Amino acid sequence: MDIRIPRGTQDILPGTSEKWQWIEGKVHEICRRFNYAEIRTPIFEQTELFQRGVGDTTDIVQKEMYTFTDRGGRSLTLRPEGTASVVRSYVENKLYGSATQPEKLYYIGPMFRYERPQSGRMRQFFQFGVEAIGSDDPAIDAEVIAMAMEFYNELGLKGLKLVLNSLGDQDSRKAHRDALIAHFKPHIHEFCSDCQDRLEKNPLRILDCKKDRDHPLMDNAPSILDYLNEQSRQYFAAVQRLLDNMDIPYEVDSGLVRGLDYYNNTAFEIMIEGEGFGAITTLMGGGRYNGLVEEMGGPESHGIGFALSIERLLMALEAQKVDLPVKKGLDCYLVALGEQPSEEAAVLLTELRRAGISADKDYVNKKIKGQFKAADRLQASYTAVLGEDELQKGIINVKSMASGEQKEVPLKEFTHYIRGKMEEEK
Amino acid sequence: MDIRIPRGTQDILPGTSEKWQWIEGKVHEICRRFNYAEIRTPIFEQTELFQRGVGDTTDIVQKEMYTFTDRGGRSLTLRPEGTASVVRSYVENKLYGSATQPEKLYYIGPMFRYERPQSGRMRQFFQFGVEAIGSDDPAIDAEVIAMAMEFYNELGLKGLKLVLNSLGDQDSRKAHRDALIAHFKPHIHEFCSDCQDRLEKNPLRILDCKKDRDHPLMDNAPSILDYLNEQSRQYFAAVQRLLDNMDIPYEVDSGLVRGLDYYNNTAFEIMIEGEGFGAITTLMGGGRYNGLVEEMGGPESHGIGFALSIERLLMALEAQKVDLPVKKGLDCYLVALGEQPSEEAAVLLTELRRAGISADKDYVNKKIKGQFKAADRLQASYTAVLGEDELQKGIINVKSMASGEQKEVPLKEFTHYIRGKMEEEK
Repeated sequence: MDIRIPRGTQDILPGTSEKWQWIEGKVHEICRRFNYAEIRTPIFEQTELFQRGVGDTTDIVQKEMYTFTDRGGRSLTLRPEGTASVVRSYVENKLYGSATQPEKLYYIGPMFRYERPQSGRMRQFFQFGVEAIGSDDPAIDAEVIAMAMEFYNELGLKGLKLVLNSLGDQDSRKAHRDALIAHFKPHIHEFCSDCQDRLEKNPLRILDCKKDRDHPLMDNAPSILDYLNEQSRQYFAAVQRLLDNMDIPYEVDSGLVRGLDYYNNTAFEIMIEGEGFGAITTLMGGGRYNGLVEEMGGPESHGIGFALSIERLLMALEAQKVDLPVKKGLDCYLVALGEQPSEEAAVLLTELRRAGISADKDYVNKKIKGQFKAADRLQASYTAVLGEDELQKGIINVKSMASGEQKEVPLKEFTHYIRGKMEEEK
Repeated sequence: MDIRIPRGTQDILPGTSEKWQWIEGKVHEICRRFNYAEIRTPIFEQTELFQRGVGDTTDIVQKEMYTFTDRGGRSLTLRPEGTASVVRSYVENKLYGSATQPEKLYYIGPMFRYERPQSGRMRQFFQFGVEAIGSDDPAIDAEVIAMAMEFYNELGLKGLKLVLNSLGDQDSRKAHRDALIAHFKPHIHEFCSDCQDRLEKNPLRILDCKKDRDHPLMDNAPSILDYLNEQSRQYFAAVQRLLDNMDIPYEVDSGLVRGLDYYNNTAFEIMIEGEGFGAITTLMGGGRYNGLVEEMGGPESHGIGFALSIERLLMALEAQKVDLPVKKGLDCYLVALGEQPSEEAAVLLTELRRAGISADKDYVNKKIKGQFKAADRLQASYTAVLGEDELQKGIINVKSMASGEQKEVPLKEFTHYIRGKMEEEK
C-alpha cells in the first residue's frame, strides 16, 4: 500500500514542529500585551458564509474553496480565510453587546484553498490574524498595524517595509470610481475583455490587471488619494501621525488596493526585501472593513484586521537565517545495563518527570554504547548510569555532559539531586 | 441574513479560549518531560487511509466520516482520529529509519465525526494523543499509561480510575476466539442478528452488544486472560509490575476490549467518577497495536498510544470545579481625557507593549467614568490618567489598583516605572 499525504499539504515533523510551537507562543504572548483575546471558530462553515463574507465574484469563492455536502445534506466549506468566520461568531454570539468594545480578537489555525501548490503557497496553510470590531478610532488602525510590525520585529526579521494607503469612505470611493470610469472609458476597447467587464462593475480592479499593466493610461490613472473627502483625508492623516509618533516608518502607495467592497479607509501590507529572500515579497495584509458585520445580520460595527501566513513567515526566517530560541535538549538520560536496572530506570523516570525534569531511557535493548549515543543525540545535560552493581549498592552514577564531572548519588536522592542541578543552571 | 455555526461545532470564545491555551501549554510541557515530540498532520487525508487504518467495517468509516471529492477528483476525508495519519506520516517520511527509536510522537488538534451531537460529543472535537512506534518493551506501555495519568493528576482531577487489560498476541487471541465461538455457537440463534453475524467475523464484539447484554451466556463467557500464552502473560505481568513500582493504581478488567484487529496485548482506559460528574465516564483510551505500520507499507514496527478528548477533560474540570491557573488581568490601563492626550496615550501604549507590558486604552470615546470601569473589567494592575494638564506638565498620574497608592510620574519615565512595578510583583 502506498497512501500518500494529499497534494498541497504537509506534515510538520519533530525538528520543525518546535518552531511552530515557538511562533504560536509568540503569537499568544504579543496578543496578550496588545489585549487581544483568542477566538477559535470551526474548521468548516456553511458555504453561504464565504459566498457572502468573502464575495461571490472572488477567485477564492469561484475557484478555490473545498466545498462538500455533509451526510445531512448541508453544504459546508473548509474555511479559506478567517475574517468571515470571526464576524459570523461576533454576530451569532452577540459580542457587539459585551461591555468591552471594541472586541479585540485573534485567531491562529489552518485555512484551505484549492490552488496550484508552490513554494510558500499550500492548499492547507496557517494564518495568524486579528480583528478589532466596533471602533472607528484611527488609533485602533495604528494599533493593529503596530502589532503586526512589532510581531515581525521581535522575531528578528530585517528589511521590512510597511506600505499604507487609504481607500476612502463610500463617498470618496464613489468619486474615485467615477473618475476611473471617465479616465478609461474612451479607450476601454484597447483593454482586455476582463477589464472591459470591470469598467462598470469594479473599475478599481483594472489597476490590478496583469495583461494591461503597460497600457499608457495606467500611469496617469486617477489616484484615490486625490478623491478623499475631508473626513477620509483627516482619518488617513491621523493614522499617519500616530505611526510617526510611534516611530513606525511606512510608505504611502496609492496603488495598494483591496478587491472587496467592504474595505474602506486604511489598507496596509508588510513586505520584506533583502538577501536570501529574493525579490520583495508580501508577508501580510490588512485593512479596515465596514458593512461586513451588517451583511452577517449584526448592527453597524466597523472593523479592522490583518491576516498573515505562518508558512511565509517561516520562509522569511529561514532566508534570513534567524535562529528561533527553541528549547532543546533533555535534562537527563538514564543508561541502564541489564534487565533489573532497566525496569528500575523506568520507575526512576516517572519520579524525575513528576518532579518537572525531562528525562528518557532506552526501550529497544540498545547496548551501553548505543545508549550513550542516544543521550548525545538528545543533548542530555546529565547522563545517569545504573547497572546491577549500582542497583545493589543503591546508587546511580551521574555525569554532567557539560563539565564531564561524575558523581555517585544514592538512588533515593537522585531526583532531588538532578532537580537541584537543573535549578542551578537556570 | 442568519448564517449560523454548523451543527455539532462550537466557537471557543474569549473567557474560554484561555483555558484551551493553558491546557495546550500543559500538553506541550508534559510531552517535553516525557520526551515526546509534536507531529502535525493535515486536517484531511486520502479517504483510503481511514478505510484501511481505522477499518472498513467500523462505525466511524461506515457512518461517521466527512468524505468529499476535491476539485481534482480525489476522495478526501476530514480526519476522524489521529493514529492512522501519524502512522501514514511515520511510513511516508521513513521515520522508522531515524536514529532515535522508538519514535515518540504526540498530536493535538481537531477531529471530525458525523455523529448525533450531545453533551461531550461534538462533530468537530479536539484530541490530544501520543504514539510510541518501534518498541516492544513493556516499559514503553507503562510510560504511555503513566503519562496519561500524570496529565490528569497534574490538572487536579480526582476520582480517576485506570482500567487495564491484555488482549494477548495473535496466538492468544486465536485461542480465545475459538473458545468464544464454541461458547456462543450452540445458542447463537437466541442472539440478535448482529451478533449472529459477529460470531464468525469477530466474536469478541458480541461481548460489547447492548441488545444481548443480559443473556445468561454473557456472564460466563471465556475471558481473554485465561487464554494468554506464556509470552503474553509475561508481558502483561511486566506492565503491571512497572505500574505497581511507579505507584500507579489500576484495576484489571478482562471486559475491556478494542474493536480493531490491530490491537494486541495492552489495552487501557481512564475513567472518572465522583461528585458533579454523574455516573462514571470514560475520559480516554489507548492500547498497543501491531500490524498497522505494515498495513501502511512500512516495516514491522509495533506501536502503542492513547487519545483523549479535550472537551471531556474540560467537562470533568468544570464538574470538579477545578480552577485552571489561567493568567488574568492587564498590567496597565491608560485613561485619557481629551483628543491630544488620547493620541499621546496611543503612542505610550506602543512603548509599554514594546517593553513587555500588557496595556490598553479606550477606543470608543468613553467618558472618564466609563474608562475607569473598563480598567476594572480588565482587572488592570495599574491605571494611569493623562489629561490636558498632565500632558502640558509632562507627567502622568499612576494609580496602583491593589493598594490605591497614586503617584505622578514624568512621561519619559513612565514605561520604566511600570516595568519596575511589574517586576516587583513577580
